Amino acid sequence: MNNKIKWLREKISMQNMQGMIISNPKNIKYLTGIDAEGILLITRKENFFLTDARYTEYVQSVLTINDGIIVNDIRNVSRDDYENFFMFCENVGFEENYVTYSTYKKFLERYKIHNLEETENMIEKQRMIKDEEEIALIEKACYITDECFKYICDYIKVGKTEKEIAFEIEKFFKENGAEGLAFDTIVASGKNSSKPHATPSDKQIEAGDPITIDMGCIYKGYCSDMTRTVFARYVPVTAKNIYDLVLKNQLQTLREMKDGANIRTFSRMVENDFKINGYDLVHSLGHGVGLDIHEMPFLSSNNDTNLKANMVVTDEPGIYIPGSFGVRIEDTVLITKSGCITLTKSDKNYIVVDKN
Amino acid sequence: MNNKIKWLREKISMQNMQGMIISNPKNIKYLTGIDAEGILLITRKENFFLTDARYTEYVQSVLTINDGIIVNDIRNVSRDDYENFFMFCENVGFEENYVTYSTYKKFLERYKIHNLEETENMIEKQRMIKDEEEIALIEKACYITDECFKYICDYIKVGKTEKEIAFEIEKFFKENGAEGLAFDTIVASGKNSSKPHATPSDKQIEAGDPITIDMGCIYKGYCSDMTRTVFARYVPVTAKNIYDLVLKNQLQTLREMKDGANIRTFSRMVENDFKINGYDLVHSLGHGVGLDIHEMPFLSSNNDTNLKANMVVTDEPGIYIPGSFGVRIEDTVLITKSGCITLTKSDKNYIVVDKN
Repeated sequence: MNNKIKWLREKISMQNMQGMIISNPKNIKYLTGIDAEGILLITRKENFFLTDARYTEYVQSVLTINDGIIVNDIRNVSRDDYENFFMFCENVGFEENYVTYSTYKKFLERYKIHNLEETENMIEKQRMIKDEEEIALIEKACYITDECFKYICDYIKVGKTEKEIAFEIEKFFKENGAEGLAFDTIVASGKNSSKPHATPSDKQIEAGDPITIDMGCIYKGYCSDMTRTVFARYVPVTAKNIYDLVLKNQLQTLREMKDGANIRTFSRMVENDFKINGYDLVHSLGHGVGLDIHEMPFLSSNNDTNLKANMVVTDEPGIYIPGSFGVRIEDTVLITKSGCITLTKSDKNYIVVDKN
Repeated sequence: MNNKIKWLREKISMQNMQGMIISNPKNIKYLTGIDAEGILLITRKENFFLTDARYTEYVQSVLTINDGIIVNDIRNVSRDDYENFFMFCENVGFEENYVTYSTYKKFLERYKIHNLEETENMIEKQRMIKDEEEIALIEKACYITDECFKYICDYIKVGKTEKEIAFEIEKFFKENGAEGLAFDTIVASGKNSSKPHATPSDKQIEAGDPITIDMGCIYKGYCSDMTRTVFARYVPVTAKNIYDLVLKNQLQTLREMKDGANIRTFSRMVENDFKINGYDLVHSLGHGVGLDIHEMPFLSSNNDTNLKANMVVTDEPGIYIPGSFGVRIEDTVLITKSGCITLTKSDKNYIVVDKN
């Protein structure tokens, strides 16, 4: 049995559960490496992956004997088989934050389980701490993102549309080893940059525009996330104060981030510094990054837990002035015992594109 | 109040529900036109849309007085407000196929509802029957798809990779009025075409390759879906029989499809004709298309219901020979009283690309 499944079996056993049904595909990928439709059953003695004919060949090719997972084609799983999986289990865990209410009821009926227990993001919490292999994949995704940023800074010219730039980013990612986008790229210029979640429009870049570019790719299942706000031709004087304030807080947060740092404390520091200057932090300061682009831990002043070594999180303060413009600066960051390492390494000083 | 919400209020009232919580964003878009994060509450007398500061301005711009929807920023909704929404409601509906188990429990606790009732895809079932405006949007998405297909047939040359072709399709869609892809485009050539769900690879097109292209775009929220299997330079003799058999069944199904036609019956016809010829229909024959790319009704021999006028569905038989090649031909189709209209109109005879 692989180490992650061993860990899970110990964990559920400590909580007096004798089995677990895992349906979230990201959790399945984390535990088994399998990236296919199906369901993972941890039973008293064995582990099963139930899938269909489309995937059985692929799944067999991913697994080794070491994984200790029996692959079943659902066409060959009878009603009795379903009832037998958890026959001697008093409590069986499930993912209450992923499974719909109707699937929950279907589980009860199909597996004839005495007690289907909530597992409170047990696997998601474990996923917060990345192992070496996971960190290497995120590093690679971040490297491709930095390369893409270099490329796109040369590409952006006054007159290009936000959509064209967003599309060029996607193309670069796909042509340079990424599987695809970690999320829909944001390219928001001029007034559009005042909306934190703007979608790329047909607006053309104009001289003096701040351009917020929020981008990330997926490499072997793992995500990157980086934002830079660049300027077309020149940096408008009105933007400098805001840019400096955002950057100061982004850098200050990097100095605070390390094993043991309290998330609420360093989030409050940014909120307070923004407030003193007359602004609000309207979104959270950051989030975990891994198989999901947004995963635990969520960094905001609502979260009173501490960072731990080998978490990978974003640090992304932003200020948005409605009807005017906005600035956000974001890195993907690896937490260490003594501090943190930014995995996205693009420049954060004033970046001017289309300089002529 | 708009007609769709009036319909919903009557529907839930007939089932002795006094309110409903709608969380599925596609259902919210269908009922209100709103395309933003939030939750729609149908209460005894009023309709509320709860959203956050990011979306309030946009939502107000989408709604008219006619919609009769009160927009609330969740920051201003107190614990008491939540409890008051359904104060005099005995039964309140929710979407058990969308809402997670933990959200279900949160609803119970937050709204203090006596009885949270399953609504059995009530809105999804209504969404099966499209109105004129919806049909016009799907027609437009299909038109863009046909134009894209024309363009891509000229673009494909021996030596181009599947990924390049898929990317060019995406680019065409985005440059020609579509918001984006309705699903990840499939471009599967040669042996890859034997996998119904292949993802575009770095494989180059070779002379004699069958190339299955499954593509669709989104226009104002509505999807299109079309598949053609084309051939590079020439049609290999070995492919002709399979192609003819798939096409025959695709056309036969179009002749069967109309208001009142039993889905099981015409699905079985294809299954049987394939079987007689030594093949299997390994996926379902089709599915509804609308705000979701895959929605009700699902067309297979498991479904014993009938088609109805103004449904929009796909007709997509396919044959896949493992290790060799595959053929799938698919149209998006509007069901009428007397028959059906194919909304994707690209040629279905042998299509040869890169003819020199």
